[in-house]
Amino acid sequence: MIYALKRVLLGNPLTTAQARYERLAKIPALAIFCSDALSSVAYGPEEIRIFLALAGAAALSLSIPIALAITILIAIVSTSYWQTIHAYPSGGGAYTVARENLGTLPGLVAGASLLVGYVLTVAVSVAAGVAAITSAFPRLYPSRVWVGILCVTLLSIANLRGIRETGRIFAVPTYWFIASMALAIGAGLFHLWRGGPVPDVPAAEFSAVVPLTTFLVLRAFSAGCTALTGIEAVANCVQAFKPPEARNAGITLIWMAVLLGSMFMGLSFLSDSFHLLPREGETLVSQLAGKVLGRGPLYLMVQASTMVILLLAANTCYAGFPMLASLLAKDQFLPRQLASLGDRLVYSNGILFLSGLSIFLLVAFQGDTHALLPLYALGVFLSFTLSQLGMVRRWARHRGRHWFHHAAINTIGASVTAVVMGVVGTTRFTEGAWMVVVVIPVLVLGFLRVRRHYVELGRQLSLDGFAPPKLGRHPVVVLVAGIHRGVVTALAYAKAISPNVTGITVDLDPTATSRLRMQWQEWAPDIPLVVLDSPYRSVLGPILHYIDQMEKQQDSAYMTIILPEFIPAKWWQHLLHNQTALLIKGALLFRRGKVAISIPYHLDQ
Amino acid sequence: MIYALKRVLLGNPLTTAQARYERLAKIPALAIFCSDALSSVAYGPEEIRIFLALAGAAALSLSIPIALAITILIAIVSTSYWQTIHAYPSGGGAYTVARENLGTLPGLVAGASLLVGYVLTVAVSVAAGVAAITSAFPRLYPSRVWVGILCVTLLSIANLRGIRETGRIFAVPTYWFIASMALAIGAGLFHLWRGGPVPDVPAAEFSAVVPLTTFLVLRAFSAGCTALTGIEAVANCVQAFKPPEARNAGITLIWMAVLLGSMFMGLSFLSDSFHLLPREGETLVSQLAGKVLGRGPLYLMVQASTMVILLLAANTCYAGFPMLASLLAKDQFLPRQLASLGDRLVYSNGILFLSGLSIFLLVAFQGDTHALLPLYALGVFLSFTLSQLGMVRRWARHRGRHWFHHAAINTIGASVTAVVMGVVGTTRFTEGAWMVVVVIPVLVLGFLRVRRHYVELGRQLSLDGFAPPKLGRHPVVVLVAGIHRGVVTALAYAKAISPNVTGITVDLDPTATSRLRMQWQEWAPDIPLVVLDSPYRSVLGPILHYIDQMEKQQDSAYMTIILPEFIPAKWWQHLLHNQTALLIKGALLFRRGKVAISIPYHLDQ
Repeated sequence: MIYALKRVLLGNPLTTAQARYERLAKIPALAIFCSDALSSVAYGPEEIRIFLALAGAAALSLSIPIALAITILIAIVSTSYWQTIHAYPSGGGAYTVARENLGTLPGLVAGASLLVGYVLTVAVSVAAGVAAITSAFPRLYPSRVWVGILCVTLLSIANLRGIRETGRIFAVPTYWFIASMALAIGAGLFHLWRGGPVPDVPAAEFSAVVPLTTFLVLRAFSAGCTALTGIEAVANCVQAFKPPEARNAGITLIWMAVLLGSMFMGLSFLSDSFHLLPREGETLVSQLAGKVLGRGPLYLMVQASTMVILLLAANTCYAGFPMLASLLAKDQFLPRQLASLGDRLVYSNGILFLSGLSIFLLVAFQGDTHALLPLYALGVFLSFTLSQLGMVRRWARHRGRHWFHHAAINTIGASVTAVVMGVVGTTRFTEGAWMVVVVIPVLVLGFLRVRRHYVELGRQLSLDGFAPPKLGRHPVVVLVAGIHRGVVTALAYAKAISPNVTGITVDLDPTATSRLRMQWQEWAPDIPLVVLDSPYRSVLGPILHYIDQMEKQQDSAYMTIILPEFIPAKWWQHLLHNQTALLIKGALLFRRGKVAISIPYHLDQ
Repeated sequence: MIYALKRVLLGNPLTTAQARYERLAKIPALAIFCSDALSSVAYGPEEIRIFLALAGAAALSLSIPIALAITILIAIVSTSYWQTIHAYPSGGGAYTVARENLGTLPGLVAGASLLVGYVLTVAVSVAAGVAAITSAFPRLYPSRVWVGILCVTLLSIANLRGIRETGRIFAVPTYWFIASMALAIGAGLFHLWRGGPVPDVPAAEFSAVVPLTTFLVLRAFSAGCTALTGIEAVANCVQAFKPPEARNAGITLIWMAVLLGSMFMGLSFLSDSFHLLPREGETLVSQLAGKVLGRGPLYLMVQASTMVILLLAANTCYAGFPMLASLLAKDQFLPRQLASLGDRLVYSNGILFLSGLSIFLLVAFQGDTHALLPLYALGVFLSFTLSQLGMVRRWARHRGRHWFHHAAINTIGASVTAVVMGVVGTTRFTEGAWMVVVVIPVLVLGFLRVRRHYVELGRQLSLDGFAPPKLGRHPVVVLVAGIHRGVVTALAYAKAISPNVTGITVDLDPTATSRLRMQWQEWAPDIPLVVLDSPYRSVLGPILHYIDQMEKQQDSAYMTIILPEFIPAKWWQHLLHNQTALLIKGALLFRRGKVAISIPYHLDQ
């Protein structure tokens, strides 16, 4: 029944051979990999204006140069990643590039930053999407954590179905959002072009709270920089594209950069031209759409699509996290279960792990995950910088055609992202960015610890100089409490596997024991029966003691302990029997050279 | 560490030979077995007056005849049980007597009624004790369920320590309560004797709410009858007394009846003489003690001892329930685990089971268990009646000396308790007594079902006409994923137990599989290796399919599947490995004729 439910939710299993049909074309790929980056235009321009507004209305004019700087940053980072994609057509995320060119430690730092970023993005963007839903339906507010968990669960199911179906499911809302934004920006520009009326500068409404300092400008800039998170997803997942992979991924990346840059600039420019102010309870996008489209169905469409894209931003992480985790797992830095493909050809364990962590964050922060924003912006820029530095090192080593030209682009990219990282780190250190200093080293140490375990395991299991153990006439003991079909069957099995069999029983009731002795004469006269005393009525204690004594005398590497067990036909019948066999097996697991065998005797009713 | 904690809480284990030193003298026995019955004087007389007061002040004078009737009832039931004790010196609760003389079904009905009664008494009296505590410390009220759970836990621990220690722990509060009551009643009688002033009849304060009907009188009577619950505990546990068991138990029973009757009558008489009225927020005992002892330290002592005895009433059930459950288990009507003595010579599983059920009730009813009262009064009188009827039947069969005389006493007892049962059943049917009609048949059916399973089990496991299975050259398959020390060890083990060994691997990765083939040639050239295809990357599916195919060809009754497993040195390292072995073992458990063996290979670090 569980199997049938799984098939309904996730679809039929896919064969390994079908993997190449699961590759993505550019259109669905854009929907999967770019929803995170594109969604940030819904709040990026607003964040910039919120900070500038603190210094009064005049400071708002700075929002255009800041938006321009961010757009240039997008162009630089995208170009750098375009180069990375072509250099690493097998998938070159920050982890691969940094590890290969800078060394293991920088690679792990980049990997840890990205993993943290992915988890936080899911939690933050689901929380933002849920906040939009509960604004529309306030009655849902008390159950916001449950709504969040439901959203994460739906995202998991969609992604467990496989990457191609996810693309199909999520393509519509992403393109709907792009169309809505194009409509709103186009209508706004048209309004300005034909000289439509714009609201006055509401100078009287507010004045400066703080002076306009460089620090404030940098803070506004770093707030806008969250628009860049998610930009590396394409480079991480080049192998998810249809061949030619690198070419398709590169084109998708460029498209994303163009869309992201123009939407960001467009919204910033119109917000400034219409003198829009960040206002409690209404977003800039909503104000703009209200002004240029009227408060009709078109306005509602823009609002609805914004809400959906915020929720879908999380989906990009469902492509990136499992892929990155599988790379780390293949390199033995994470549990190897994360490297195995599930029956729909996705890294199911990675998807489930990501969902578990995000749900944990949603519950721990009770759906209010704003505090986590600085943490992930810093982590993302750290990984950008490491990735670019790795590329610079690579060009310098390989010295291919135009290597200097390429290296220059990546050097500019690295410098710019390093500066942004510094800005984000210093302006938001006390707000939570300090946690990066704690979390990332802890993760890196964990990776190294896991790796050490696997290396040590390989050494201990290595066949070099290994001689298989000698078993000889290895001793077999059969534990019996009474004598019945199951016990006689177990004795037959014991005799089949060794000539050296002993029966053991614990004397809890003298009457039962003497009856057992009599029946033993009849059914197993050729096997010695040892009766153990148990003054405290314990079964486990005397058996373990006897086995330990026996071990000292034996010359075989292994000793086998046979437990006759009958398997009831119905589950509730298990409650009617002692679970002593389970206890004994548990105790033997931690003793060397002991093999515990249950001989099942199945009951009919 | 868990073991050390257990020893601190419960004391060192006792040998079976020590059992006879664990017997109880009469003084601690009275404390254990009578706290339930005696505690009812704290509320019995009050319950009678509450009902009568509904018909106005004049009706209150009926409380003396009703109290007298209940005292006579106590005398009759005690005499009947005294006879039972001497007839069944090995312990003759209602279950044993009814089953032996009336048949299995009446016996099970009596057993079910008593078990229900014990569980409900624990829940109700702990809830009453907690209510007394939270009246004194209102800040504890919100955590009343937790306080109740704590009380149940402490009772469990005390009883798990063993019956002799429980007697020692609980003797002081029981005798303290008896002394307090004697003091309050004595002082009251002295006050009346020397003609001290008594309050006027507060006629103006209230008038009749309902007319004084026979039904109302019967309800008042049935409310007072809860005083009889717990009276059968001595008869159930005769074997807990020091020899001569029957004589000691009989004397204890008589003492209990005398104490119970005189306290009940004394309190009823004084309540009437002092014209005490049931009042919201203060009990009759508190009013009386306040009047005759003044509101000083003596009054506080009476109040405190009442609170403690209410809590201790539950303790009687901790003697009765495990004993009765063990009898039912020995007769195969309950899981046999309930019949085994723990390391402190008590039926530990019964104690834990009782605690679990009571905690469930406390949580389910949020500490307000009043609704359960009618349910258990009816059950208790049902078991009384069945037990007395059984005794009548016994006298008629055995016809010993004075048999007619004895039979007459039990006949009177049976008739009276049957009448009371009818009264309780009719007057409180809608209040919850109807549940008896549901719960007891369900329990009896459960008992019969359990018994049927054990009987059927005995038949299926019977050695009559059984021929042990033939194993011959039984097939052994070793499941391998790669080749390492653990696998080579498992192959050595397999060769030691059978000449018919096959290696099986699932092809998930062609590179790894061809490497395995090469290494196999070196390490196990004499064992065939079967490579299974797995288009859907499942490990379990192809293996189970292969095993099923193989079974059709084999002629052995059993087939052995060996799983090489390495055991990590630290618990967290388990997370770094697939738990496929566990899955395979779980799947094989439900297939006949399959023996799954893990060959452990212990790691050092």
